[in-house]
Amino acid sequence: MDMTLDEITISRAIVTDHLNTLIEYMEMDVAVIGAGPSGLVCAALIAEKGLKVGLIEKKLSIGGGMWGGGMMFPRIVVQQEAKRLLDRFGIRSSEFAPGYYTARSVEAVTKLAAAASDAGVEFFNLTTVEDVMIKGDGTLSGLVINWQPVEATGLHVDPLTIGCKMTVDATGHDAVIARQVSKKCGKPDIKGEGTMWADNAESAVVAHTKEIFPGLFVCGMAANAVFGGHRMGPVFGGMLLSGEAAAEQILKRF
Amino acid sequence: MDMTLDEITISRAIVTDHLNTLIEYMEMDVAVIGAGPSGLVCAALIAEKGLKVGLIEKKLSIGGGMWGGGMMFPRIVVQQEAKRLLDRFGIRSSEFAPGYYTARSVEAVTKLAAAASDAGVEFFNLTTVEDVMIKGDGTLSGLVINWQPVEATGLHVDPLTIGCKMTVDATGHDAVIARQVSKKCGKPDIKGEGTMWADNAESAVVAHTKEIFPGLFVCGMAANAVFGGHRMGPVFGGMLLSGEAAAEQILKRF
Amino acid sequence: MDMTLDEITISRAIVTDHLNTLIEYMEMDVAVIGAGPSGLVCAALIAEKGLKVGLIEKKLSIGGGMWGGGMMFPRIVVQQEAKRLLDRFGIRSSEFAPGYYTARSVEAVTKLAAAASDAGVEFFNLTTVEDVMIKGDGTLSGLVINWQPVEATGLHVDPLTIGCKMTVDATGHDAVIARQVSKKCGKPDIKGEGTMWADNAESAVVAHTKEIFPGLFVCGMAANAVFGGHRMGPVFGGMLLSGEAAAEQILKRF
Amino acid sequence: MDMTLDEITISRAIVTDHLNTLIEYMEMDVAVIGAGPSGLVCAALIAEKGLKVGLIEKKLSIGGGMWGGGMMFPRIVVQQEAKRLLDRFGIRSSEFAPGYYTARSVEAVTKLAAAASDAGVEFFNLTTVEDVMIKGDGTLSGLVINWQPVEATGLHVDPLTIGCKMTVDATGHDAVIARQVSKKCGKPDIKGEGTMWADNAESAVVAHTKEIFPGLFVCGMAANAVFGGHRMGPVFGGMLLSGEAAAEQILKRF
Amino acid sequence: MDMTLDEITISRAIVTDHLNTLIEYMEMDVAVIGAGPSGLVCAALIAEKGLKVGLIEKKLSIGGGMWGGGMMFPRIVVQQEAKRLLDRFGIRSSEFAPGYYTARSVEAVTKLAAAASDAGVEFFNLTTVEDVMIKGDGTLSGLVINWQPVEATGLHVDPLTIGCKMTVDATGHDAVIARQVSKKCGKPDIKGEGTMWADNAESAVVAHTKEIFPGLFVCGMAANAVFGGHRMGPVFGGMLLSGEAAAEQILKRF
Amino acid sequence: MDMTLDEITISRAIVTDHLNTLIEYMEMDVAVIGAGPSGLVCAALIAEKGLKVGLIEKKLSIGGGMWGGGMMFPRIVVQQEAKRLLDRFGIRSSEFAPGYYTARSVEAVTKLAAAASDAGVEFFNLTTVEDVMIKGDGTLSGLVINWQPVEATGLHVDPLTIGCKMTVDATGHDAVIARQVSKKCGKPDIKGEGTMWADNAESAVVAHTKEIFPGLFVCGMAANAVFGGHRMGPVFGGMLLSGEAAAEQILKRF
Amino acid sequence: MDMTLDEITISRAIVTDHLNTLIEYMEMDVAVIGAGPSGLVCAALIAEKGLKVGLIEKKLSIGGGMWGGGMMFPRIVVQQEAKRLLDRFGIRSSEFAPGYYTARSVEAVTKLAAAASDAGVEFFNLTTVEDVMIKGDGTLSGLVINWQPVEATGLHVDPLTIGCKMTVDATGHDAVIARQVSKKCGKPDIKGEGTMWADNAESAVVAHTKEIFPGLFVCGMAANAVFGGHRMGPVFGGMLLSGEAAAEQILKRF
Amino acid sequence: MDMTLDEITISRAIVTDHLNTLIEYMEMDVAVIGAGPSGLVCAALIAEKGLKVGLIEKKLSIGGGMWGGGMMFPRIVVQQEAKRLLDRFGIRSSEFAPGYYTARSVEAVTKLAAAASDAGVEFFNLTTVEDVMIKGDGTLSGLVINWQPVEATGLHVDPLTIGCKMTVDATGHDAVIARQVSKKCGKPDIKGEGTMWADNAESAVVAHTKEIFPGLFVCGMAANAVFGGHRMGPVFGGMLLSGEAAAEQILKRF
Repeated sequence: MDMTLDEITISRAIVTDHLNTLIEYMEMDVAVIGAGPSGLVCAALIAEKGLKVGLIEKKLSIGGGMWGGGMMFPRIVVQQEAKRLLDRFGIRSSEFAPGYYTARSVEAVTKLAAAASDAGVEFFNLTTVEDVMIKGDGTLSGLVINWQPVEATGLHVDPLTIGCKMTVDATGHDAVIARQVSKKCGKPDIKGEGTMWADNAESAVVAHTKEIFPGLFVCGMAANAVFGGHRMGPVFGGMLLSGEAAAEQILKRF
Repeated sequence: MDMTLDEITISRAIVTDHLNTLIEYMEMDVAVIGAGPSGLVCAALIAEKGLKVGLIEKKLSIGGGMWGGGMMFPRIVVQQEAKRLLDRFGIRSSEFAPGYYTARSVEAVTKLAAAASDAGVEFFNLTTVEDVMIKGDGTLSGLVINWQPVEATGLHVDPLTIGCKMTVDATGHDAVIARQVSKKCGKPDIKGEGTMWADNAESAVVAHTKEIFPGLFVCGMAANAVFGGHRMGPVFGGMLLSGEAAAEQILKRF
Repeated sequence: MDMTLDEITISRAIVTDHLNTLIEYMEMDVAVIGAGPSGLVCAALIAEKGLKVGLIEKKLSIGGGMWGGGMMFPRIVVQQEAKRLLDRFGIRSSEFAPGYYTARSVEAVTKLAAAASDAGVEFFNLTTVEDVMIKGDGTLSGLVINWQPVEATGLHVDPLTIGCKMTVDATGHDAVIARQVSKKCGKPDIKGEGTMWADNAESAVVAHTKEIFPGLFVCGMAANAVFGGHRMGPVFGGMLLSGEAAAEQILKRF
Repeated sequence: MDMTLDEITISRAIVTDHLNTLIEYMEMDVAVIGAGPSGLVCAALIAEKGLKVGLIEKKLSIGGGMWGGGMMFPRIVVQQEAKRLLDRFGIRSSEFAPGYYTARSVEAVTKLAAAASDAGVEFFNLTTVEDVMIKGDGTLSGLVINWQPVEATGLHVDPLTIGCKMTVDATGHDAVIARQVSKKCGKPDIKGEGTMWADNAESAVVAHTKEIFPGLFVCGMAANAVFGGHRMGPVFGGMLLSGEAAAEQILKRF
Repeated sequence: MDMTLDEITISRAIVTDHLNTLIEYMEMDVAVIGAGPSGLVCAALIAEKGLKVGLIEKKLSIGGGMWGGGMMFPRIVVQQEAKRLLDRFGIRSSEFAPGYYTARSVEAVTKLAAAASDAGVEFFNLTTVEDVMIKGDGTLSGLVINWQPVEATGLHVDPLTIGCKMTVDATGHDAVIARQVSKKCGKPDIKGEGTMWADNAESAVVAHTKEIFPGLFVCGMAANAVFGGHRMGPVFGGMLLSGEAAAEQILKRF
Repeated sequence: MDMTLDEITISRAIVTDHLNTLIEYMEMDVAVIGAGPSGLVCAALIAEKGLKVGLIEKKLSIGGGMWGGGMMFPRIVVQQEAKRLLDRFGIRSSEFAPGYYTARSVEAVTKLAAAASDAGVEFFNLTTVEDVMIKGDGTLSGLVINWQPVEATGLHVDPLTIGCKMTVDATGHDAVIARQVSKKCGKPDIKGEGTMWADNAESAVVAHTKEIFPGLFVCGMAANAVFGGHRMGPVFGGMLLSGEAAAEQILKRF
Repeated sequence: MDMTLDEITISRAIVTDHLNTLIEYMEMDVAVIGAGPSGLVCAALIAEKGLKVGLIEKKLSIGGGMWGGGMMFPRIVVQQEAKRLLDRFGIRSSEFAPGYYTARSVEAVTKLAAAASDAGVEFFNLTTVEDVMIKGDGTLSGLVINWQPVEATGLHVDPLTIGCKMTVDATGHDAVIARQVSKKCGKPDIKGEGTMWADNAESAVVAHTKEIFPGLFVCGMAANAVFGGHRMGPVFGGMLLSGEAAAEQILKRF
Repeated sequence: MDMTLDEITISRAIVTDHLNTLIEYMEMDVAVIGAGPSGLVCAALIAEKGLKVGLIEKKLSIGGGMWGGGMMFPRIVVQQEAKRLLDRFGIRSSEFAPGYYTARSVEAVTKLAAAASDAGVEFFNLTTVEDVMIKGDGTLSGLVINWQPVEATGLHVDPLTIGCKMTVDATGHDAVIARQVSKKCGKPDIKGEGTMWADNAESAVVAHTKEIFPGLFVCGMAANAVFGGHRMGPVFGGMLLSGEAAAEQILKRF
């Protein structure tokens, strides 16, 4: 192997390529916050229709709570109703009991993210959402972002603002965006997550997937957290279906 | 959506499915340690030939240092020589300057991991390798593993041992396995990584990919760390080619 | 000593033996949470009647606050009324003053745990209870568990659910399960522990040992914490008697 | 239950009872440091012959690394040769494969400790050994102890000295006492633990159990750490046999 | 210098001497909590009348906030009214401006403590008060104490109870005992400290020195914290006078 | 009590008074570093002869390791030879066994410090010695000091230099000044503390009290640490005698 | 270069020069707390009229949140209305879009601070304001200050008080002084910062710049935090104009 | 004030402006690492001659150890020889003693940085230098940089490389670049800083300012650290003169 590499060209390639993307995505159609399973599905299904979608994740890696399966045993379960979404994303599964399919957690998360990439989603990892932008019309129209390591080290560094026509809170149990809006604007009311009750939770998460503030949707566990739904543990059908439902509702707006 | 989910069945599905895998993989053909780009390529290329391959990663997520691109700008560069591997794994890239291709870091890492899954690699994440097993014939024939959270919390909990015919140290700069063997057996000599010199480093990493102790191969930055090679920064061609080279050498042994 | 040990067989023995137990105990008769003195007595007395009892403890070791005696002087005191329970479990004691018996704390805790083992109790240590399962009938019918090191390291890993017909909260001052149920279901009311008043506390802890929510009993200091009873310090008669009382009440349900 | 408890009497009972023991044990026959399986067996077998034995443990709980089984699966394995010691201490086991017996880790550790208590061993938990006393005759004749929480909080508090005719270092991998003596007196040489090789390790641990400095014996993993023996993981036969061997050698001195 | 010292005798001397004191002081006349200037003065003045007084301090050293003077300049100021107390305890001072005397902070604190020792006060340092004992008559009649390092390391170790006829909360701004009583018994009301206003604060602290709950007095900054008095900074006359006032009130009860 | 206090006058009094002292003590006769028992005795005995002595202590409080007695039992032991020094400083003691006197640790430390104050010693607490000044004549002639909280918070703040004709390292086991000089100047050789051997250590500490570098003396445990002497635990006669010996040697130089 | 430097003279120069300043500034005209852009402008404009102004900053360095630009890209934006203030302080800028000027953050902050120095402002860095002084007339007339490293290390050291005729809270989002006054005096009401809305926020911050309690003004983000104004991110025109407005209002009082 | 601000334009202005600078400075003439006084002077004097100079600083703020003066008293001393540099940069000073000038530390650091800005220096703060680039000709020709918060949080993120014709290590006591080169290339030899000796140190720092490796110069305390020079404390003349000397040597190369 005979190479003549110029380190400066490599640096310029990375900086130029990403910062052009960043500048381009300062006005996007849909910002999805939280790259767990419901956020990935939601972002992928919207982007494949041609909309400009950014997926904002505070961690270095994508995937949220899906990597660890249940209690560090890296397997997930998906029920019959959502089996078609596993198939759609090429995630192999096997039937453990009638209606219960197990899949490998690493395969599931990486294939969802790969599909989102192919659909045209841009990922902004290591990025936190500090606050939201709500101007005179009372609609959430932008996000106030910062680097996660800045937040983690407690540095006093100002954020930047990016604009988005629609926002999806897919931040899981914490429902970070919904809570921030609730605290500053007095609504929506956040009920908090209930006890474990898987089938109830799985049904509810799809029903709770909706617009909760002008311009702001919730999906995945954030939806159950906002409306007081139950927990479901390592069964992921509802997550996938909720991401799909959010995508469908948002696509109708464009 | 009308579901009747049994939480206990979900729990049993996950535990049973992973337990069977864990017991099955207590004797594997090849154990790759470290799920960064070179480890993923190496594992994928061996597994697709039908060997039993386990990929052991201490973090919750797969991907190592690839997620963050360069300085948190999530882009990587791959040079001409390795462009064919990007294509092989379906990772989209664009030419920034002649011979320099940029790709999205999130897409790159998730597609490599998805490909490894499809090839049949089993992932054991949140797992650390505390030590190695070397019995009377002086060959590395097993790994002493533990849960990473056990190590992180300093709990006094014994590890377990798993057997493997060949082992690949793909743990990056730290060359964890090579150092552990070196410390306890007096060899191989570990030279440590040199300064930045990208083209030299990229060439060397493939040349340094080899068996360094009976039963133990190194690839990726671990190879340069063992032999005193240079650093290369966020250019990843050598990583991919080194993973490929390790796979080819190991396949010849079976 | 001439041995030929196979490390892989050792690993398989441990994993197989425990995971079969774990799968078996995903449906148990009684789950006792907290392996302090009252939990140990309660679990032992129920299990010796043939019920399937699991004892869940978040720490690596069993015994709770009993190891340290009073202010690190490893001695406990038991009053006349509970002396028969010391005797029953073979814990040696000596009379310090009329009606006051001292025993060695290490002996006390290890003999209670050994007796629970002999009675058939299965121990699940390093296990936290994150939440409870309450389905349509409003009865606590399961526990949402996770590894304690996962919780301690703040990893985002989903829990698993196990089923139990009856649950005993023996988690001490914190009354963890009672508080979790209270927070999510609005009842029972948790009054919190009162000031030190040993004889009052000792009497009250037995009186407060009862079912406080469908399917959930409290015993030991958790009972006093729920009902606002007083503290008693390093006198353990009430703890033992409360564990016995909980066992008796639960056995009547089967 | 009608009790009239006097909190002050309880306090006095605990303080008086323990401090009398502490003063009595400031001159003991044998001090065993480290309450893991080999230390417990060693202490129990010496004490049952009527010698005054103190078991010093830095943690709050007794048992060392035995509680967690292998990788938090609370099971241990004992091989054929040591099965008789499981039986002797009443620890139930079942044969997994010919010559391999599994036992519950919680049962094992609590029954060993209970047996040591019954044999007359006094436990000093939460106690660290900061240093040793070696006077003009060059024999280790005392231990410099302190409270473990004092050490953990970095407080500047002086230790106390206790006298012992023989000392056993059963502190596991770290071989704390042996290393302290080695550092200050220039001997014995500490070789450090080798790689995993279970049957070799199990044989060696008994062979390495011996007096390594006037007045100082090693047993358990400390023996292998001193002499460069191998690791054995969660198989505990050698630990039990090493504790027995140390007891036998020490008993011959009295 | 020719000495033949026996380390064991030294250990026995320390343990025996303190143990006897500890057991003797499990029933004392007055317990003062917090060894800052007001607590030291209060304890000294009571003890010199022959009452049995224990001074309980959570830190290793005695003196509270007096060591550091103002902003680490080790000087304190005392006003004319309290100059006689400086003189009484032999603390040298010089007049900076009419009515304002400066003294060295190290001299002040050590002479107050030396005087308390001479008066017969027993010091219990590194000791925290976790709770109080209030039995049927509603009077604070005892303290629930523990080692401070136990609390600092979060160890689960039970406390002991000591009895006292009168208690003085001299714990400064935090008013630890008053707050604990207030939280558990619903009274007294704790108003919290006001802004800086030195002369007002100095007058008020003496006026606020009183019995606030049956058996419980406050003095020093704890008095101002309970009654919402102002802060005074590094002027210490009020502290000394408040300690004197508390002593006088308590002596009238005996 | 009727006061009119001016907060600004209080502030000015403290700053002015200490500032004048600080500027005055920028050239002192003797700097003693470390305010444990040997440093306090040494400083007191030199200052009472009229020399200008500063006592520099990194902690907020004075007293070093003497407060905690042995294992938090606040008692110390002093042997016959040093009993006269207890008496000299007015520290009450009682004979436990022939030649062994016990004293209260709080009384001992506060009376030593009070005596040092009376002798004219100035205390500089919360002050660390970062380095030393050694100019062309090769004599230690100054100290490079900083605030301890600056060091503790890792702030990048420059130190100041103060001058002293003689310096005493009384920093205990760490022998901070001796080690710093040794590291930068290649001498003296630091042997490190030996094992426990009280009578040998007590004799040696006085013999080791001497000038170890031009301008630098050691006393107390620092003397034994430099010369490889033994440990002595909570017997303090040697400490007091060593401080006295250092004072005598230094006084001969003036 | 031939120098003969006396380290002691250097130390004396620094201590004397600063402490004289400190004593002089114990009574100042205006204290500005927080050395971010609005505080710097406010202090500079007041001082250049000849008033005695102290700028108190808790960090070691001056400049607050201005150094980091937006998301660590060290650039700030200033709009047309405030361009004249950039020019006034000699800060170079370039027009990015009509009405939007970018400047280098490091240049901006250092030139503002240099200008404040030239105007005669005295800086007190590493200084925290723990509390305020409010005497009988209900006016804020002083500040209770301490060293920031004292606070950061949790040391128990008393503060000092300094007097000021007017105080400006320029502490940013936290509005530290306003909150402290509000908590202790029941007013003013603190509304907290709103969501991002830059032009609204920029206008409001000037309108909210006013006296909010006798003797206390707010400017910069503290003004918006008190009155519930919006956030503005890395656009700094409002900050500069608010500092100017506060200066103008205060100058009218003198 | 009537503004219509577009948050997105603000974000774009900041990112675009900095991005262009970053890409432009990926090839610079001189990189100065460390923005303390010597680095600031060096960078300013080179840039004012028209060379492209980048100043890389790991902290958020510029100024290094100059902000805190001596022991937090914010004053510095400059001797006669360097007085002209204070004057050149407009830093006001006053003569304390013949040849000793005091200046305010905040004024000094901000005026040096403002002057560097005016001279055309670009600042890259929050940026660490992880490594260096040395290619086939053995000359240091580039720096491997990363965000400081990435390093502080231990994130696994690759660095970028920037090119520079000359590099100045002005990183103070740590001499970070010199040590890194020394470790990887075997030279230069790093002697480490000596004891305090101000005039010797001040003369030496200028003499030690030189090229120590092809392409790498040292100035300021890094120069004394490399060559074993003495410390000088808060006297800054040598720092300024060393920065000037480095600038002069480097300018001769262009």
